[in-house]
Amino acid sequence: MAKSAEEEHPVKAFGWAAKDTSGTLSPFNFSRRENGDDDVTIKILYCGVCHSDLHAIKNEWGFSYYPVLPGHEIVGVVTKAGSNVEKFKVGDRVGVGVIVNSCKSCENCKQDLENYCPKMVFTYNSMNYDGTKTYGGYSDLVVVDYRYVLPPLLCAGITVYSPMKYYGMTEPGKHLGVAGLGGLGHVAVKLGKAFGLKVTVISSSPKKESEAISKLGADAFLVSSDPEKVKAAVGTMDFIIDTIAAVHPLAPLLGLLKMNGKLITVGLPDKPLELPIFPLVLGRKLVGGSDIGGIKETQEMLDFCAKHNITSEIELIRMDYINTAMDRLAKSDVRYRFVIDVSNSLTK
Amino acid sequence: MAKSAEEEHPVKAFGWAAKDTSGTLSPFNFSRRENGDDDVTIKILYCGVCHSDLHAIKNEWGFSYYPVLPGHEIVGVVTKAGSNVEKFKVGDRVGVGVIVNSCKSCENCKQDLENYCPKMVFTYNSMNYDGTKTYGGYSDLVVVDYRYVLPPLLCAGITVYSPMKYYGMTEPGKHLGVAGLGGLGHVAVKLGKAFGLKVTVISSSPKKESEAISKLGADAFLVSSDPEKVKAAVGTMDFIIDTIAAVHPLAPLLGLLKMNGKLITVGLPDKPLELPIFPLVLGRKLVGGSDIGGIKETQEMLDFCAKHNITSEIELIRMDYINTAMDRLAKSDVRYRFVIDVSNSLTK
Repeated sequence: MAKSAEEEHPVKAFGWAAKDTSGTLSPFNFSRRENGDDDVTIKILYCGVCHSDLHAIKNEWGFSYYPVLPGHEIVGVVTKAGSNVEKFKVGDRVGVGVIVNSCKSCENCKQDLENYCPKMVFTYNSMNYDGTKTYGGYSDLVVVDYRYVLPPLLCAGITVYSPMKYYGMTEPGKHLGVAGLGGLGHVAVKLGKAFGLKVTVISSSPKKESEAISKLGADAFLVSSDPEKVKAAVGTMDFIIDTIAAVHPLAPLLGLLKMNGKLITVGLPDKPLELPIFPLVLGRKLVGGSDIGGIKETQEMLDFCAKHNITSEIELIRMDYINTAMDRLAKSDVRYRFVIDVSNSLTK
Repeated sequence: MAKSAEEEHPVKAFGWAAKDTSGTLSPFNFSRRENGDDDVTIKILYCGVCHSDLHAIKNEWGFSYYPVLPGHEIVGVVTKAGSNVEKFKVGDRVGVGVIVNSCKSCENCKQDLENYCPKMVFTYNSMNYDGTKTYGGYSDLVVVDYRYVLPPLLCAGITVYSPMKYYGMTEPGKHLGVAGLGGLGHVAVKLGKAFGLKVTVISSSPKKESEAISKLGADAFLVSSDPEKVKAAVGTMDFIIDTIAAVHPLAPLLGLLKMNGKLITVGLPDKPLELPIFPLVLGRKLVGGSDIGGIKETQEMLDFCAKHNITSEIELIRMDYINTAMDRLAKSDVRYRFVIDVSNSLTK
């Protein structure tokens, strides 16, 4: 019989996990592996709350296996570093993102596209190569191969940066629409402005308008439920980054695009969307996807953000507020990222 | 009151048109305009039968206005040429495709992309700038601005050639899937081979296999209803041209693509398709569209086809066989294009 989560590894660990599809998070004792030659052990200070976490704890994508201990926007401090680790030393402030392992030998890994490696291991709810399950950052510590450790980051940054580069959405003066103003969307606005784009936020929440413009620097705000304004904006955008996590219609977004326009989805709705073919064909438009980014490109994104002084707007919460935060996240009631103050609030 | 179709223009014309959504075609008297300075008058010899014609006569796209006289793959001989026409003279063999007019001044027209001009006039079921309706090639003659007249062609050629160029699907050695082996599909196979691609036909009709390989030159044939074979082909294709005119699932096609793969739709199903977001995001894949091509690119396609000896495989039919042909087309029972022998069979 397989060992329990608490006994399978030697290092005791503690966090908050969901035990079933209710998604309610509660205290959970488990264990981490001993720090190996390639590993760093990180005392977790903060962990961002991504909409993926919400999908995962409720099994909305259909591949959760419980308990699920989420969190893949980890910031902490190195407490141990293996003998092969030159990049980090004890005391360094570091981050861990969505990926903690990959095969390192496939075509994608060789091209620094670990994020598309067929054997990629996610930071939580995934099986690592030693056959044990991964647990995320809503916890006190984590042990990670140093090749997947970075300066502090949030997944939101790379998830919008990578498609902007890949799909050629960085040409100054072009018009970018950002659909959905949550964790990903608000970073997309800042990145878009740093690339010199005209940025319009497309949102169903009129109350986000003033802040989107005055605080995030968006050029315009389009309330998606206002048919008059939507009509006036038809055919005006070169690209749209669609960060909406829920099932939603694509037709209105496709309508906002100019000819040759690109609609890039980075949210992950749990059901298929309706794709009208006429606008695609008649306007030579495309709908493309993109998933996070490789470790090298993530470093590039971090350097870009540092240069342009781009930071994420957060709401710092205590661990025991997490279930309320998840309810608010489900209602898009967050500006713009919940971050758990792990080290100061993870009490048993 | 507006004049009748028979009286609005001075030149008497005759063809077969659908009078209502039954789509049944029957004899129809109408008229064509006098040949102007920029016009050529063409005695129609042959007209190809495109699946669009079937959509239009039954109003499956929702914008038909009756009577609908279809046909936009017209081949004929010039019988009159206006004073400004230097390119063609009486007796020349010529073709007319999907477009017979455009604004000639918008951004798209200036870039030889008349096919995306917002004021483009289709060869039939469209309103021309003089306020009269256009009627297509299932008829004895047509009067067309010389700028939209070409050497003989079928719309099938440009409709697959243009996206292959635009989406970068011409790199020798890459693997192209062609979904649907009808009028567009069979030309896509030939063009793909001419570009040096490996071509796999994806079809629900196993009986088309031997001909696809021996006659059209495809490298492989994948029966889309065979789950074992489909499974073995997952992740093997760089691009797919999707020529299927009916509503169909995109998920299996997206599954056949490698990472960064492109699925290009050129068929025009009348309802939205289901777009699963996971394969798009996790494989950085895209779904794009494309609609015919501009006049200049159509000429380029014709030159390419001439150089590579690419011709369309046709079944020549008489005008009074057209309703049977439409029934067969609806069941994909055609290899690979019906062409009406207009001048020899258009009797009243």
